[in-house]
Amino acid sequence: MKQKVICLTKPIREEAIRSLYCSTHPRSLAIADLGCSSGPNTLFVVSEFIKIVEKLCRELNHKSPEYKVFLNDLPGNDFNNIFKSLDSFKEKLCDEMESGIGPCYFSGVPGSFYGRVFPYQSLHFVHSSYSLQWLSKVPEGVDNNKGNVYIGSTSPKNVVRAYYEQFQRDFSLFLKCRAEELVEGGRMVLTFLGRRSDDPSSKDGCYIWELLATALSDMVLQGIIREEQLDTFNIPQYTPSPSEVKLEVLKEGSFAINRLEVSEVNWNALDEWNALDFESERSESLSDGGYNVAQCMRAVAEPMLISHFGEAIIEEVFCRYQQILAERMSKEKTKFINVTILLTRKA
Amino acid sequence: MKQKVICLTKPIREEAIRSLYCSTHPRSLAIADLGCSSGPNTLFVVSEFIKIVEKLCRELNHKSPEYKVFLNDLPGNDFNNIFKSLDSFKEKLCDEMESGIGPCYFSGVPGSFYGRVFPYQSLHFVHSSYSLQWLSKVPEGVDNNKGNVYIGSTSPKNVVRAYYEQFQRDFSLFLKCRAEELVEGGRMVLTFLGRRSDDPSSKDGCYIWELLATALSDMVLQGIIREEQLDTFNIPQYTPSPSEVKLEVLKEGSFAINRLEVSEVNWNALDEWNALDFESERSESLSDGGYNVAQCMRAVAEPMLISHFGEAIIEEVFCRYQQILAERMSKEKTKFINVTILLTRKA
Repeated sequence: MKQKVICLTKPIREEAIRSLYCSTHPRSLAIADLGCSSGPNTLFVVSEFIKIVEKLCRELNHKSPEYKVFLNDLPGNDFNNIFKSLDSFKEKLCDEMESGIGPCYFSGVPGSFYGRVFPYQSLHFVHSSYSLQWLSKVPEGVDNNKGNVYIGSTSPKNVVRAYYEQFQRDFSLFLKCRAEELVEGGRMVLTFLGRRSDDPSSKDGCYIWELLATALSDMVLQGIIREEQLDTFNIPQYTPSPSEVKLEVLKEGSFAINRLEVSEVNWNALDEWNALDFESERSESLSDGGYNVAQCMRAVAEPMLISHFGEAIIEEVFCRYQQILAERMSKEKTKFINVTILLTRKA
Repeated sequence: MKQKVICLTKPIREEAIRSLYCSTHPRSLAIADLGCSSGPNTLFVVSEFIKIVEKLCRELNHKSPEYKVFLNDLPGNDFNNIFKSLDSFKEKLCDEMESGIGPCYFSGVPGSFYGRVFPYQSLHFVHSSYSLQWLSKVPEGVDNNKGNVYIGSTSPKNVVRAYYEQFQRDFSLFLKCRAEELVEGGRMVLTFLGRRSDDPSSKDGCYIWELLATALSDMVLQGIIREEQLDTFNIPQYTPSPSEVKLEVLKEGSFAINRLEVSEVNWNALDEWNALDFESERSESLSDGGYNVAQCMRAVAEPMLISHFGEAIIEEVFCRYQQILAERMSKEKTKFINVTILLTRKA
């Protein structure tokens, strides 16, 4: 899914990188990927960035700059795995760029992006994809969110408000920190899992979690999970609308908005993309969209579910979730909504 | 052992850091530890550095600078482990420094220091302790080093020369790369496991490995290891003398030598230090120096031995090695020799 989104948003990054390079012609370019994770997509945006800059350098007859690449995620991320793949990544990149590339210096930077992570004015380009919908914590005051695990159609108003206010606090802090870290004229491209609708409890942001809540509720009814366990489980996430994202940027004041776009990915688009990653599972994955979506959500939700409910119920939860997903996907057109924003650090 | 050396060489680092700060008054200080490893000593020099600078700032009534800390080692190092310890490290450091410290930004930088690791002129202070005696590879042309695993008293002249020439190539490349990465006036403190004598096959640099060769030779005699297996096993290490280190620095030409010192640590000094790390093993470690030295050498040599001889013989090798070490230590005063050099990047 992340890969699909990364392809959809390529034109925005290309615009950002070209305008950044052409307005500053830096001899040294510092790029940070926030929430880089540790999988096959981790270095994709980095290689794209370098290719775009190198192409520009050829066009303008410039010498290649030096690249400083900062890979950020929480301290629990598997940085070892990224570091072991860097040599072959650089080799492949050099092979692809026949005319050579500027020297690249990679580092791993552990820490929450809801705080300062980089030195003052040390970055030219910040990228973050599918990370900023995660809040710094579950909002306080959502104790009465009965039967839901996120905002749902039955969530009380105070719950919706608590989630939105946590998003506002987190995202404005994010902007403030990045404003200190980016040079003047630095660019930032952020993609959130979000929603189109102005209504925070609308289906496009919440449905995927409502179906997980359905699986858990069924298990409550059958006595496998205690009701209060479900009632006290909430996901630290917020899927903002474009206007909510825009409002925080305007309030914070350090960034000009160059672009703000919404794109969508069908839940069952996971078929195509997962099939690319896992060739051997192709036939299975093409035949059952529920399986892929459940696997994708499992990668995201399993640690939280384990720490709240314990390990014993996990297989059962995802087995039920997969069935529910497959059933819904056969009956309606279900989509993830992405909000992407391109910002420039003002002078 | 590393901890003991780090304490011995503290005055040199203190001189380096004070003179660096006083000559440049930087608002932002970039420090790199090369070959940082991933154990209890990893962040010791970093905390010492920050404390010295903060003390200086108080004395001079300066505002604290911003610290950029780069932790470098080979990509196979356990950076995850370091990253997970950073939050508690920073907390502890802040507690110790009542008047607060400047903001600290940590990153992990994977890669061999026998090549460029950092951007152009991006560092103020480079530290490396007990890493630079490792060569980039086993030198070529040491096929006739029969019965030895490193330079030994019976090594042919061509073997000694091949080791020395590999050291020269590696260390001069190291200096060239660091000269590009350090700012003018930047300082570098390097500690090698080395030797006092001008003779590369003298006991002070080689004895610890000769005793390992003895253990392996005994196993050859008893048919546990094949002779050609031992003959083709060589350690990629060189324990230089002060004058060999000095010669390479002068030849390379980018650095002024401020200090060049030799210090020593008794093999059985490991007792005291290991006892601090492993309280529960105190009684055992105080009673048997051979055990501690063997454990220390095992941490260093085991991966190389396994990849050459296979896993099966390892316990046996270190059991024999421990006995040989204990026997020698009871009869002679055995020491590790350290060569420490303080350099300043010339203008």
